[in-house]
Amino acid sequence: MHTRTLPAIGFLILGILVLAGCAQAPIALRDMGSFHVGGRDVEISGRPVKEIVFTPGGVPAKVDPNGTYSVEAMYVQYFLPAERRGVVPLLLWHGGGLTGVTYETTPDGREGWLTYFVRQGWDVYNSDAVERGRAGWAMYPDIFKSEPVFLTKANPFERFRIGQGAGSYSPDPAKQRVLPGSQFPVGAYDNFVKQNVPRWTTTDDAILRAYVAEIDKVCPCAILFHSQAGQFGFRAAQARPDKVKALIAVEPAGIGDPRQAAALKGIPVLMLYGDFIAQDARWPQIRKNGIDFTEGIARAGGKVEVVDLPNVGIRGNSHMLMMDRNNLEIAALIQRWLEGQGLYH
Amino acid sequence: MHTRTLPAIGFLILGILVLAGCAQAPIALRDMGSFHVGGRDVEISGRPVKEIVFTPGGVPAKVDPNGTYSVEAMYVQYFLPAERRGVVPLLLWHGGGLTGVTYETTPDGREGWLTYFVRQGWDVYNSDAVERGRAGWAMYPDIFKSEPVFLTKANPFERFRIGQGAGSYSPDPAKQRVLPGSQFPVGAYDNFVKQNVPRWTTTDDAILRAYVAEIDKVCPCAILFHSQAGQFGFRAAQARPDKVKALIAVEPAGIGDPRQAAALKGIPVLMLYGDFIAQDARWPQIRKNGIDFTEGIARAGGKVEVVDLPNVGIRGNSHMLMMDRNNLEIAALIQRWLEGQGLYH
Repeated sequence: MHTRTLPAIGFLILGILVLAGCAQAPIALRDMGSFHVGGRDVEISGRPVKEIVFTPGGVPAKVDPNGTYSVEAMYVQYFLPAERRGVVPLLLWHGGGLTGVTYETTPDGREGWLTYFVRQGWDVYNSDAVERGRAGWAMYPDIFKSEPVFLTKANPFERFRIGQGAGSYSPDPAKQRVLPGSQFPVGAYDNFVKQNVPRWTTTDDAILRAYVAEIDKVCPCAILFHSQAGQFGFRAAQARPDKVKALIAVEPAGIGDPRQAAALKGIPVLMLYGDFIAQDARWPQIRKNGIDFTEGIARAGGKVEVVDLPNVGIRGNSHMLMMDRNNLEIAALIQRWLEGQGLYH
Repeated sequence: MHTRTLPAIGFLILGILVLAGCAQAPIALRDMGSFHVGGRDVEISGRPVKEIVFTPGGVPAKVDPNGTYSVEAMYVQYFLPAERRGVVPLLLWHGGGLTGVTYETTPDGREGWLTYFVRQGWDVYNSDAVERGRAGWAMYPDIFKSEPVFLTKANPFERFRIGQGAGSYSPDPAKQRVLPGSQFPVGAYDNFVKQNVPRWTTTDDAILRAYVAEIDKVCPCAILFHSQAGQFGFRAAQARPDKVKALIAVEPAGIGDPRQAAALKGIPVLMLYGDFIAQDARWPQIRKNGIDFTEGIARAGGKVEVVDLPNVGIRGNSHMLMMDRNNLEIAALIQRWLEGQGLYH
């Protein structure tokens, strides 16, 4: 489904548009669509049949909870530009308690990284990991083994280096203690928390299995991953080192298996961190875990580039770099790095 | 964000592509993106603080479950064609236990209604209703007042007129009793059930509120809705009759408020039903509820067209018309009807 042939005139005409250097040129796609991948079947037995009226005034339907459930697949949505310039597809993996919405329009309505990279000519695969968003979730404690975690509105504000740590959030914007110089579009914070979805702490193996299934379906590829997906990005690449041509770790909160660091020696890694880390209660340790892991890769002969954005003059970034006001400046930095890896023409 | 100006050359070139009648022409978008809309804040208090390690090997974070939660917003993703031919946007609302994935690529990898209507030149807004997909869901029983309902793999097969009713499903495809002549891509049934997400039976008011908020943000518009969204499509139009220019009810499983049928008299309604209804245990009554409701609209002077697809020679359709093998034939029927309402140029 990804290989529709475009008539030559299409390429010619799109070429004219691109050569015109027109920033408002349409996004021309040779295809777009979605699929689910991975997952497994689980049997549930010994439970009573229920009669459920699904719609008020509707006809009651018997629902037998016993039987086979399809669980732990993930959702992938793809956008394939008419003029493909990325040598391999670019996979975008979101962080914990979030979905692929992370990379779409920013909470304040600006362009996000998804369309930025599509406009650059990358085949982009954006996804919802197992347990969230359009991937769906499974009953607990029968299938998922713990309760879900819900975050208050205050939690990401104080934990994602938007506010000045614990106690900095207030429902009254005038009383919020935002980090001075923050690039987060704090006026649209309420739109950001609407993107949050419940998460579990016991589904990591299932999430990783589905990501590996995505790699088996879509790759060779480059993978850009954020926060919680640090562990998934590095571990999935360790499981399929031949299929991963580049890793972009955006503030990874987890790491791969340090004992298998050498598996990554053939994969260039870019690691990005935003601002305000030294003064945070948790981020110095989180960053150190990431750096220690990449040093293992480097010792094995791998190529890792760590960029602390303030060191290259990009200041004020929260944990949600891809929706900060300067998000496209950071996307451009990633784009240049990918070009430097020979993955773009 | 929806009003980017295209240079004249863009329109000219796209016009050439369209005039060339090229089925494989790129999908040219003047913009695409997403947003959340609606929702409310809820306070939770009196619960103990938890310490949670979100990522194995990660740094423990204190999570205080007390505080303000953002709940009951919905997710909307939009695709705006470069050459806009629909006079108003087209909103796609999915059925129960499903998400906007309903209208994307079919389970067997063919084009769905979302890209079909985008290719026709409609600004299309596809969404995940409150409680599902990228809309997220709220803790229960604190906020949502009931337990979620999970469907076995057998349930939609037997209830959506794919198989021959109760007992027709088997995990062994060779033993499945599919309705003779079914258009459902039954070989890809396992991909379809991966699209299922848990649902609640107590969230209808919240779902409706968010849909009305979407209308207030996006419309005037036409709304195409399916199954459970029957009640939401008709009720939202009753709440905002001046903003809704057409309703396409695809096998509605719920209806509007019969006492307010007259509110819909100025809105043309197309109502579609598939095949195998007479022999089903539930669908004759569900269809009758829909017909009775539209007769109230007609008595008030409204314009309703009910199409039982087998009566116009379109046979074999399941409840999931938009992913059946002849899905684009049905989409073309809807397209022609919309043209007939003066909503297309």
